[in-house]
Amino acid sequence: MSLDVLTPVSELTAALGDAVVTEPDLMLAYRRDQSLLTAAGMPLALVRARDTDDVVAALKIAHRHGVPVVTRGAGTGLAGAANALDGCIVLSMEKMNAVLDIDPAARTATVQPGVINGDLAAAAAEHGLWYVPDPGSRAISSIGGNLATNAGGTCCAKYGVTGDHVTRIKAVLADGRIIHTGAATRKNVAGLNLTQLLVGSEGTLAVIVEATMRLRVAPTAAATVVASFPETAQAIEAVLAIRQVAEPCLAELMDRTTIAAVNDMTHMGLDESAGALLLIQCDGRDSTAEARICAQACADAGATEVYDTDDPVEGEAFMQARRVALTALERRGSTLLDDLSVPVHRLPEMLQAIEGIAARYDLTIGTFGHAADGNLHPTIVFDASDSEQSARALQSFDEMVVECLSLGGSISGEHGIGVLKEPYMEAMVGATERELMARVKEAFDPTGILNPGRGL
Amino acid sequence: MSLDVLTPVSELTAALGDAVVTEPDLMLAYRRDQSLLTAAGMPLALVRARDTDDVVAALKIAHRHGVPVVTRGAGTGLAGAANALDGCIVLSMEKMNAVLDIDPAARTATVQPGVINGDLAAAAAEHGLWYVPDPGSRAISSIGGNLATNAGGTCCAKYGVTGDHVTRIKAVLADGRIIHTGAATRKNVAGLNLTQLLVGSEGTLAVIVEATMRLRVAPTAAATVVASFPETAQAIEAVLAIRQVAEPCLAELMDRTTIAAVNDMTHMGLDESAGALLLIQCDGRDSTAEARICAQACADAGATEVYDTDDPVEGEAFMQARRVALTALERRGSTLLDDLSVPVHRLPEMLQAIEGIAARYDLTIGTFGHAADGNLHPTIVFDASDSEQSARALQSFDEMVVECLSLGGSISGEHGIGVLKEPYMEAMVGATERELMARVKEAFDPTGILNPGRGL
Repeated sequence: MSLDVLTPVSELTAALGDAVVTEPDLMLAYRRDQSLLTAAGMPLALVRARDTDDVVAALKIAHRHGVPVVTRGAGTGLAGAANALDGCIVLSMEKMNAVLDIDPAARTATVQPGVINGDLAAAAAEHGLWYVPDPGSRAISSIGGNLATNAGGTCCAKYGVTGDHVTRIKAVLADGRIIHTGAATRKNVAGLNLTQLLVGSEGTLAVIVEATMRLRVAPTAAATVVASFPETAQAIEAVLAIRQVAEPCLAELMDRTTIAAVNDMTHMGLDESAGALLLIQCDGRDSTAEARICAQACADAGATEVYDTDDPVEGEAFMQARRVALTALERRGSTLLDDLSVPVHRLPEMLQAIEGIAARYDLTIGTFGHAADGNLHPTIVFDASDSEQSARALQSFDEMVVECLSLGGSISGEHGIGVLKEPYMEAMVGATERELMARVKEAFDPTGILNPGRGL
Repeated sequence: MSLDVLTPVSELTAALGDAVVTEPDLMLAYRRDQSLLTAAGMPLALVRARDTDDVVAALKIAHRHGVPVVTRGAGTGLAGAANALDGCIVLSMEKMNAVLDIDPAARTATVQPGVINGDLAAAAAEHGLWYVPDPGSRAISSIGGNLATNAGGTCCAKYGVTGDHVTRIKAVLADGRIIHTGAATRKNVAGLNLTQLLVGSEGTLAVIVEATMRLRVAPTAAATVVASFPETAQAIEAVLAIRQVAEPCLAELMDRTTIAAVNDMTHMGLDESAGALLLIQCDGRDSTAEARICAQACADAGATEVYDTDDPVEGEAFMQARRVALTALERRGSTLLDDLSVPVHRLPEMLQAIEGIAARYDLTIGTFGHAADGNLHPTIVFDASDSEQSARALQSFDEMVVECLSLGGSISGEHGIGVLKEPYMEAMVGATERELMARVKEAFDPTGILNPGRGL
């Protein structure tokens, strides 16, 4: 092969062999994440990296040729950040899925980015340790993707999001150079915080090839409270009262629409007369007493039924009801899932606005989410084959985001910006700030090959 | 005044009036922070900003003339980051010291950067709320400086450092443009994390003019344990055992030298036969039971005396003994205070190394620090008028930092890099990473006027 016929694909194939896929049929499954209504292009090639060397080689070739690279974890994203761009290299990290080390003394786990969240949690549990972040996708999403979107979960109000649990990151820059960020210590103020810059950067700055995550000692006990309320506002009133007197690890909300959908799917017999259901868990040695305090606060706020239990199996069954919320709503039609975060005390206004928008657009919107930290997932259920209804769905989505911004909220609490929220970025962060983010990206990726146009 | 005689100083004076000081005598007090053995230059002018407009005006003038700007909080830094550079503008934020807003519903405080940490804590306490970060300097250091160095304190292991408690920052870029970072929400993944980039950046990226800090509900109770051990290694053994079964908010260590110095100063009657003293506090409803568990762990690890109390006044008296440790050591000579952070389980090796270094260099080194998070402050006591002894002090300082690095530690846990730790930055973060930090700085400050040569 003479030099002048070296294409990106031929170079990739020469360097990486069968880690490179170019058959369009095989690449199809790697074109999109799990978001709907987000654009996706057709990649030039798919690289299924087996190790850091593969990532370095692929990036060097992409860099030389100026080919965009879209890095991809498990593909469970909900904002389109991992959707292919036309003519890009999709760099899949799914095969780099080893838990490299669990260090009980240091209480850390060092993992490759393709490790599934639940697999890390299970590996930690073998040592009596707990990997805390538990996004709804924990059974299927990868740590690399969790870091790239700064994924949340149910326990964030007490224990923080993914970025609060990472201590070191090894990553490959666009030009193939390797960097290590952070330190193995709890406290470290040496230089700029490159670790938290990579967290949530959605593949725009570097490719994460290894991460060291903090583990905790698993709590000895947990207690669960389930309370149903006539109205969502009362449920939030309970959440606000509870945070004055207790620190539950989670307080999850489901509205009337979500309760009905979950019952239909699971036959769990949740109280369908309720306008809102609140699921609270407290952990630690004091959990039983703390749960009783939460239960009382729910009763005081107008709960019609309050149930509390120390039984972990029963608690887990209720958690399961909450976890299937999105799946249950998806059985009712196409769904457009939002991810809006407001200050907790503004939740009543946000929930009221969502109800008003649903009524105005004559759409079903099921809302569930993390009441303890103000992060809601209003989910628009619509008929995607009906273009008029699809248009209404999009308009209502837009109105919810605008309402969220007017309440001092964030356009994304845990799913990221990707393609879906890009139109709202300037309103969210400001023009100067956005330009600054672009300049920071340029510092990492001067030729702009890493997930261009996404995430910032 | 014709255009061609416009100097930076004349422009500053024209724009800012008596906020500008150029008398050398008056500027002297603004030349240095509290670090010893760090170089400090002579500023061109001191600007005591009264508001954001003053900061914008000063930066625009500095930017136009290419004059370096060293931003300064309360001047309590310990690494020389706020030391003047020759011909610089020192931009003091001490007059911007208003608590702008405390929002009990949102549980946030919005403050100007010059607010003293303890004043913020007191203002929050009036609302039954708690500003958690409590650096040793809390009575005299400002929130802006705390953010610029990502200051720690005693409660970090349980509650995190300053950067874990900030939600929004308003800052002025080198060219005078204003940015707002972050969001008012608990979770926010919109774009790159500019907030955590500013945290710990030591005045190199932008000038913080406002910050919104998170507050917590103050715990209802606290219990204190004081335990003395024959050797430091046993105290750490206790800390390691405790973190398997409890989550104290702090576990502070003082070695034999520090205990004696504190007794000399305070006549508190701490156990001078002990090689190490451990001061532990637990908070929350379960604190009494948790403290008992900690006390038992201390006894099991070989403590010769263990005392526990629920009395907050008594607990505060012990905390005071710990807080005066540095002051007590300073009465014994000149001090060179270090700030080394290692993984908690490596503390025995770090402490042993410090003892070996003290013996080898025939120097007194008093070590105290935050055992719960692995952050030690070995303090070299020496006679600064003796050049040979000063040289030994510097060599021993160097050896401690090198030892810390070899244990996977960080060269700074909470004081920052400044001038003092600059020689160790490349060994700490790596050459590629350091270059990347420089490029990120350039994204914020293309002409490099903000605290050049410091912090990264």
